[in-house]
Amino acid sequence: MMGEWLVDGRESRSIGVDDRGLAYGDGLFETIAVRGGRCRFLPEHLQRLMDGCARLRIPPPDQAVLAKEAAGLAADCDHGALKIIVTRGAGPRAYAPPTKPRPLRVLGLEHTAPGRAEYVQLGVRVRYCEVPIGRNPALAGLKTLNRLEQVLARSEWTNSDIQEGLMLDDRRCVTCGTMTNLFMVADNVLQTPVLTEAGVAGIMRGKIIEQARAAGIETRELMISTDDVANASEVFLSNALIGIWPIREIEGRDYARGLVTLKIMRALCAIGVNECDV
Amino acid sequence: MMGEWLVDGRESRSIGVDDRGLAYGDGLFETIAVRGGRCRFLPEHLQRLMDGCARLRIPPPDQAVLAKEAAGLAADCDHGALKIIVTRGAGPRAYAPPTKPRPLRVLGLEHTAPGRAEYVQLGVRVRYCEVPIGRNPALAGLKTLNRLEQVLARSEWTNSDIQEGLMLDDRRCVTCGTMTNLFMVADNVLQTPVLTEAGVAGIMRGKIIEQARAAGIETRELMISTDDVANASEVFLSNALIGIWPIREIEGRDYARGLVTLKIMRALCAIGVNECDV
Repeated sequence: MMGEWLVDGRESRSIGVDDRGLAYGDGLFETIAVRGGRCRFLPEHLQRLMDGCARLRIPPPDQAVLAKEAAGLAADCDHGALKIIVTRGAGPRAYAPPTKPRPLRVLGLEHTAPGRAEYVQLGVRVRYCEVPIGRNPALAGLKTLNRLEQVLARSEWTNSDIQEGLMLDDRRCVTCGTMTNLFMVADNVLQTPVLTEAGVAGIMRGKIIEQARAAGIETRELMISTDDVANASEVFLSNALIGIWPIREIEGRDYARGLVTLKIMRALCAIGVNECDV
Repeated sequence: MMGEWLVDGRESRSIGVDDRGLAYGDGLFETIAVRGGRCRFLPEHLQRLMDGCARLRIPPPDQAVLAKEAAGLAADCDHGALKIIVTRGAGPRAYAPPTKPRPLRVLGLEHTAPGRAEYVQLGVRVRYCEVPIGRNPALAGLKTLNRLEQVLARSEWTNSDIQEGLMLDDRRCVTCGTMTNLFMVADNVLQTPVLTEAGVAGIMRGKIIEQARAAGIETRELMISTDDVANASEVFLSNALIGIWPIREIEGRDYARGLVTLKIMRALCAIGVNECDV
């Protein structure tokens, strides 16, 4: 990743070789949209990071320091992606966390081009991945540095006509995309996989649920099968950087961009997700 | 971790902040016993590393280079632990692996004191962990850098009277210890959890199976329940650094160190695992 990096507040492009982030993936990260020099939904991202630290019992970095560093990096960036990594810090070779861990914080800014309008306007093509997603309630919902399943799932295809892959758990529940959350509409109810066993509780996912409920759209988190997806009237993907991508095709099954999706996209647009301006 | 480090062959204590080992745990590692200036079972460790690279589709580092660097670090060390990390290397922010990854290799030597003889002679005390181990056949058996489950499981206790915690999957199958493989004896058959769903296929585990079979001890890899463990006549743990630790107690259930365990310890001792000299 090119761009600017801050490691514990200092400009740097390296971390210690004994950091537990490398050794064990012992940490968390956030990926934040930078638009017009500002970090979008920064408080929500920082709150998720704090919640994640609490669950992993990593002493949380100072939120005000993180917010200041993030704002500083974003200030001169019109369109980018800011990554924040927090690890449990350096430690001796042992799974047991140090009794007094000194967490490491890493911020990296990447300047990006705006996404392709056709993905938003016309939708994306999606496949099912063969690599399953493992279930573990202790890690479910968290954006940890343990992302090898996503790497392997994303390695399954190189065809650039396919924009995302959906991951199934061992019960054949559709859990998420490799880098997105999944939503579907059936009987005018907005549905998304419940993330108590696996998956990342995305910030954009949270905004979508919030906006849908505010707009009077019934919204449920539940277990979703591939049959449920096949029978849905609308299906879309979300993450912090793309906003919403309607799905136009999953392995030969075509979908039209529907009215519920459109309504939610307009609601997101109204709270600053300009990618959803359709 | 104190000690000496080589990063891509050069003395260094840092890696790039954009390495996929940090970002996603996209890599593997080995922990090798150094005894009398030599790496024990180095060919087996390197072979496992190569096999792991093949499964993760990481271009494998040159084995001869790794062997030379490992031997160089170990040469002046009477008793230590050598860690080898291989990651997919640096890359842009994306789960998709770079089309031409340049893997990173990191070797670190830590000088260690010999283990406590009482653990070998009298055995260790063990608990069951509450944090489950997730199942994923795509990663099962591999010693990947995704070890957060082990970190959380090992965080559950600080009582130094407890030397290890056993991890169960969601089916309540006993899979492994946080840092060890598990063996048990029932009806004079040596049994160890089958690792097609989770767990790390330890080098010492492989040696134990090999030596047991060579000694005419019937040996099976299978699913093991907590009841199976409770009803076993002998139970022990293994890893590359400790050799074998007989288990003397699991949550109130006492075990005697049995004859099968002793026989295997003597066989290991004969192939250089001096820790097992009892």
